[in-house]
Amino acid sequence: MRTIRLGMIGGGPGAFIGGVHRMAAALDGQMQLVCGAFAGSPERSQEMGAALRLDPQRVYDNYEQMLQAEAALSEDQRMDVVAIVTPNKTHYAMASAALHAGFHVICDKPATFTLDEAVALRSQVAESDRIFALTHNYTGYPMVKEARHLVRSGALGRIRKLVVEYPQGWLAEALEDSGVKQAGWRTDPSQAGISCCMGDIGSHAENLAEYITGLKIEALCADLHTFVQGRPLDDDGNVLLRLSGGARGILYASQVSVGEENGLRIRVYGETGGLEWVQLDPNTLIRHHIGQPSQTLRAGANHAYLSTPALHHLRLPAGHPEGFIEAFANIYRNVARVIQARLEKRSPDPLDLDFPSIEDGVRGMAFIDCVVRSSQDDQHKWTPFHVP
Amino acid sequence: MRTIRLGMIGGGPGAFIGGVHRMAAALDGQMQLVCGAFAGSPERSQEMGAALRLDPQRVYDNYEQMLQAEAALSEDQRMDVVAIVTPNKTHYAMASAALHAGFHVICDKPATFTLDEAVALRSQVAESDRIFALTHNYTGYPMVKEARHLVRSGALGRIRKLVVEYPQGWLAEALEDSGVKQAGWRTDPSQAGISCCMGDIGSHAENLAEYITGLKIEALCADLHTFVQGRPLDDDGNVLLRLSGGARGILYASQVSVGEENGLRIRVYGETGGLEWVQLDPNTLIRHHIGQPSQTLRAGANHAYLSTPALHHLRLPAGHPEGFIEAFANIYRNVARVIQARLEKRSPDPLDLDFPSIEDGVRGMAFIDCVVRSSQDDQHKWTPFHVP
Amino acid sequence: MRTIRLGMIGGGPGAFIGGVHRMAAALDGQMQLVCGAFAGSPERSQEMGAALRLDPQRVYDNYEQMLQAEAALSEDQRMDVVAIVTPNKTHYAMASAALHAGFHVICDKPATFTLDEAVALRSQVAESDRIFALTHNYTGYPMVKEARHLVRSGALGRIRKLVVEYPQGWLAEALEDSGVKQAGWRTDPSQAGISCCMGDIGSHAENLAEYITGLKIEALCADLHTFVQGRPLDDDGNVLLRLSGGARGILYASQVSVGEENGLRIRVYGETGGLEWVQLDPNTLIRHHIGQPSQTLRAGANHAYLSTPALHHLRLPAGHPEGFIEAFANIYRNVARVIQARLEKRSPDPLDLDFPSIEDGVRGMAFIDCVVRSSQDDQHKWTPFHVP
Amino acid sequence: MRTIRLGMIGGGPGAFIGGVHRMAAALDGQMQLVCGAFAGSPERSQEMGAALRLDPQRVYDNYEQMLQAEAALSEDQRMDVVAIVTPNKTHYAMASAALHAGFHVICDKPATFTLDEAVALRSQVAESDRIFALTHNYTGYPMVKEARHLVRSGALGRIRKLVVEYPQGWLAEALEDSGVKQAGWRTDPSQAGISCCMGDIGSHAENLAEYITGLKIEALCADLHTFVQGRPLDDDGNVLLRLSGGARGILYASQVSVGEENGLRIRVYGETGGLEWVQLDPNTLIRHHIGQPSQTLRAGANHAYLSTPALHHLRLPAGHPEGFIEAFANIYRNVARVIQARLEKRSPDPLDLDFPSIEDGVRGMAFIDCVVRSSQDDQHKWTPFHVP
Repeated sequence: MRTIRLGMIGGGPGAFIGGVHRMAAALDGQMQLVCGAFAGSPERSQEMGAALRLDPQRVYDNYEQMLQAEAALSEDQRMDVVAIVTPNKTHYAMASAALHAGFHVICDKPATFTLDEAVALRSQVAESDRIFALTHNYTGYPMVKEARHLVRSGALGRIRKLVVEYPQGWLAEALEDSGVKQAGWRTDPSQAGISCCMGDIGSHAENLAEYITGLKIEALCADLHTFVQGRPLDDDGNVLLRLSGGARGILYASQVSVGEENGLRIRVYGETGGLEWVQLDPNTLIRHHIGQPSQTLRAGANHAYLSTPALHHLRLPAGHPEGFIEAFANIYRNVARVIQARLEKRSPDPLDLDFPSIEDGVRGMAFIDCVVRSSQDDQHKWTPFHVP
Repeated sequence: MRTIRLGMIGGGPGAFIGGVHRMAAALDGQMQLVCGAFAGSPERSQEMGAALRLDPQRVYDNYEQMLQAEAALSEDQRMDVVAIVTPNKTHYAMASAALHAGFHVICDKPATFTLDEAVALRSQVAESDRIFALTHNYTGYPMVKEARHLVRSGALGRIRKLVVEYPQGWLAEALEDSGVKQAGWRTDPSQAGISCCMGDIGSHAENLAEYITGLKIEALCADLHTFVQGRPLDDDGNVLLRLSGGARGILYASQVSVGEENGLRIRVYGETGGLEWVQLDPNTLIRHHIGQPSQTLRAGANHAYLSTPALHHLRLPAGHPEGFIEAFANIYRNVARVIQARLEKRSPDPLDLDFPSIEDGVRGMAFIDCVVRSSQDDQHKWTPFHVP
Repeated sequence: MRTIRLGMIGGGPGAFIGGVHRMAAALDGQMQLVCGAFAGSPERSQEMGAALRLDPQRVYDNYEQMLQAEAALSEDQRMDVVAIVTPNKTHYAMASAALHAGFHVICDKPATFTLDEAVALRSQVAESDRIFALTHNYTGYPMVKEARHLVRSGALGRIRKLVVEYPQGWLAEALEDSGVKQAGWRTDPSQAGISCCMGDIGSHAENLAEYITGLKIEALCADLHTFVQGRPLDDDGNVLLRLSGGARGILYASQVSVGEENGLRIRVYGETGGLEWVQLDPNTLIRHHIGQPSQTLRAGANHAYLSTPALHHLRLPAGHPEGFIEAFANIYRNVARVIQARLEKRSPDPLDLDFPSIEDGVRGMAFIDCVVRSSQDDQHKWTPFHVP
Repeated sequence: MRTIRLGMIGGGPGAFIGGVHRMAAALDGQMQLVCGAFAGSPERSQEMGAALRLDPQRVYDNYEQMLQAEAALSEDQRMDVVAIVTPNKTHYAMASAALHAGFHVICDKPATFTLDEAVALRSQVAESDRIFALTHNYTGYPMVKEARHLVRSGALGRIRKLVVEYPQGWLAEALEDSGVKQAGWRTDPSQAGISCCMGDIGSHAENLAEYITGLKIEALCADLHTFVQGRPLDDDGNVLLRLSGGARGILYASQVSVGEENGLRIRVYGETGGLEWVQLDPNTLIRHHIGQPSQTLRAGANHAYLSTPALHHLRLPAGHPEGFIEAFANIYRNVARVIQARLEKRSPDPLDLDFPSIEDGVRGMAFIDCVVRSSQDDQHKWTPFHVP
């Protein structure tokens, strides 16, 4: 058993999500960052590499150089997997090149810049025999796994309704005009794509809802809006859902809800039960059953009442809060273990295969595409949700 | 100053809301129940009257008899105001007759069975010079008054978005088939009208949202549904809102959300602030302001930081929970005080005029009418919300 | 069946608890306030009587006059029961005279000014065959009844530990110097007795703990303190408890805990389970069982999982918050029903006998006496808790 | 700048806290585990080393061997700092030897087995010029830093009262009889010392209270108890505190409170303000100010209203929960940075010096000693708290 070697594209000085990926990779000691092309300029890339204590020889000017150089290294040296943590615009080319060069890929969401790119990437993943993991990190929380398990095991009966929401408030002002990097690219169509709010966080809500319930959106009716003057993309959106099996739903996301931080929350109701999970209190899952007191299920590696999937993704006994990084790290840990199994030429533990894939990426891009089209159409109520 | 005399139509054995009205009327000692026509049969009406310790002579067989007999009593005897607490079907005829007979009216919501009736009733109220109060009781909570005050005083800036929800779970099963009276009439079109869920609780959500924000719904897009087989009316509904001033919103109501009790909740976001109020924790109001820690405003007659409207509707110092009945009683108390002012031929305290009126009733009926039409129309996305 | 007639001693202009008693008596329509001696001066007593719409002939100058005059009225006129809502100093003489004059008594807590008085009053109650109810109102909450039921039914196993706390913050400043009436008498030894904080609210905590658990305090170790300079009585106190059956506990009360409102809260732990109840969220009871998810029991007349005692004291279905007044009114309603049963010469419903008695009053006075003695003794660790 | 090299004593298969230390060390990429003596047997130590992907040559049979071998390595190879994560019994000898061999030390709490050892270790640390950090990890939470800052900046006025509690439920049954390793050594006097509950978690409560308030315990009155039959050490304890500046307090800890997970919670009240922090919701700090609504301060690297110490210890923007490991990692990160500064021969950032030291260790041992003595003394109420 050896440490899995990680390279990174993006995540230079001032970035947010790059640091998260690095902490997630480091947490469990199964991966080690060995190289990177961190920024647009070689100087800033080296600056980052130095801060990360990397060998300067393995800090590259750009991703093409990195892929080429790493591929040329001996097998006991070169990186195994590359993390892509750049703005959406660039994901496709990078992922495609990485797969082509024979590397596994962990890519930040959304998968690509356009739906067409996502579909093309799916083919390339299929042909490549490489692992492609998408960091829809919220499904990495153990109590989300528990929720999925409960729905699948029939604890709620046939699902009737879901409400999934993702309010934030940080873009209530035009931070993009104040030079805040995170705000800048997200509100810029040339970097983010056709949607800001729905692309950035609405797609997390969609992914979470489908992951937990196993239902598929069949049609939707969206009302996106831009509240901050001059912003070219949506910063708020409300969506009615019709799902497989006759379920109905509401999905909404907002970046202008002053006072909200990162309020991803889902409620699911079936014929005999219900459940609620809130990202800000991620170690708690509320479970309802008709005619009985509600139960509060709590994360805890010592809680024998939890399901195998939940326990598999827990590190600590009850009462020791695991948070955002730990959930994120569950994706990295699972990917590392699956790569490890390949290195050892054995089948991976099926529980380790539980991480978002390019299929989630295609669905996410199709969702963004569909809500934007629906919102632009003030005539037709329902826009069918087709996933290519 | 004398006690205001109350009569009641409906609220016989087994009813729920009649008892609430009686407790609300009694709480502050300003009204006294003196007569009633409580049930469909004279025997059950007398049975109820006896339980309420009324003079059997003033327990009537039906409302027509009551109105006639009470009108014939001397001024120092006869009832001042009549509470109508029957199923929706009957409200209009009763309210109309009561006004005609010269009595003030307190009517349970929704105001009438049809929108046309509500419009007609509005004219009759206008012509009558009688008070007509509608028990949209949730606006009676002091912290709802505080929320309205904050919005009106500009504390949130221009309003951008609201989310109002009202999930319940009690009709997740077909209780109407088990002889539960409350379920029976609400799911019966001949008694409840064109909607169950939206008529019963969706209209509360609409009223609360417009009361707090002062915004008016301009168009909506609704998706109502019936989940329990064989039920002829909706038991769940999701609605997108477009409101005056460019605000957007979501309103949803459900009676099949297993585990939810009476989860009326509203969140409002403006350019600089936000607020959240939850009926299950009614003495708390969360206030957000951009860039600052959120504040928890708490009900309490001793809290000098609260606004005059909130303080006017509080009875107890902080930490002594006031609940559903107290909020309901705020309508009764205000009506009693306004009647008192009339008896004393003086202007009422403007703060006492803060109770729902027939105008709220017309809006509520127009809302029910609009969501049902919108839901039935799978072609047009937006249905304009016109209030006659 | 007739309305039970209530008289009141105290509760004049500016008082707090008198108004609570009146609302509690009125809520269920079983009692009617018919007379009172509301204040120290005849003028202010009449002023209050007029505000309450009483017959001026039955508004008295003082309690002696009231008892004499009411006793002289015919049986179908005179009051049945008198509520004593004055400062502690006066309770004994008033209660004693009322019993002597043949009236039932509802007395605010603590029962008397001194322990000796409480013991003497107990004898008089026993000899009188009159009802004496003490308004330790917090035990009137339905979920407190549920908690008691759970403990009694063995759901927690043998009790090991309890933590009961009652923090308030309103006396963090010397409000008694600003003319606040509530603060004035409570901090004045000549009116309140030997303790402020422990007498006013610590005794509620003691009563709640013993009511729920059925355990008896056997010894205690107290540390009372006065934080506000110049105040002659305690405004904060911490107590270690040793209880029957080997249980241990903590009880604390404070009036200087800035930001706390009326934070009565109890946690009880047994060998196999635990529970938690918080007065600020009184309709919720958390139940723990070893190895299982915690349950959230909720007040609701429609919740079949609740016990008979809890359901007996509920008025509304789940999700319609019942608050402080409703809990207080449960004492009044039970007393009214027991008096009604006497009038009808039948045995009362045993569930109606569930209200605090003079025995609770004696225990409460013994508790106050014991904590004050313990606190003054810096030598001996444990002070035995003897109830005369 | 190079990676700081970490060795570990203890933390073999089945241990809990060793894994936490490793994740904490890895999270920020500033330390790397390079060697270890993980278990009592060489085989199990190697087994752990292999799982951790360590060079087998640097997996040692015991700590003496490790210290000797590492000291003999060249400066660019040998470990910088050793983490001691064994049961209490062994801490002193290991820490002493590590310091003597010239290594920095990170030691799990409590510092030692006896108070005398802690005092002796303090001298050795002072003489050694090495860093000694104690993992009282709860003070690593950013919102605890914020709480401390608020108190120090006078936001609460002079402190009057504190309540600190630490209930757990996991030892409500005799897990030590079922072979649970964690339960076994903690309840064994030959490994844990004179106290189980107070030593294991009560000392965390003491440390947290003194850290936040800056007050010192001056005397205490303790009542420890063992509820589970046959257990030789306390599993529950209640303590009254008298603190410097005239403050009073309550501290309690329990391992038999069924349903409680790891409920460390502190409330502090001063003349003008208060605050509350709860470990299970660690990213929230409630702040009270007299006469104003309470504020909810939230962790978030983007929250400009937070203090410098809080921001210094945050990794993520608001709404991305940081948990137990992140708080733990703040100790490791600070130690790494201080070692880095030494390597670079510059003064450390004063903010990095904020980690628990041997002085905290001595105070903690003195606390355990004092509560045990107090509890055994049923005669004297107050036991002075002297720190040697």
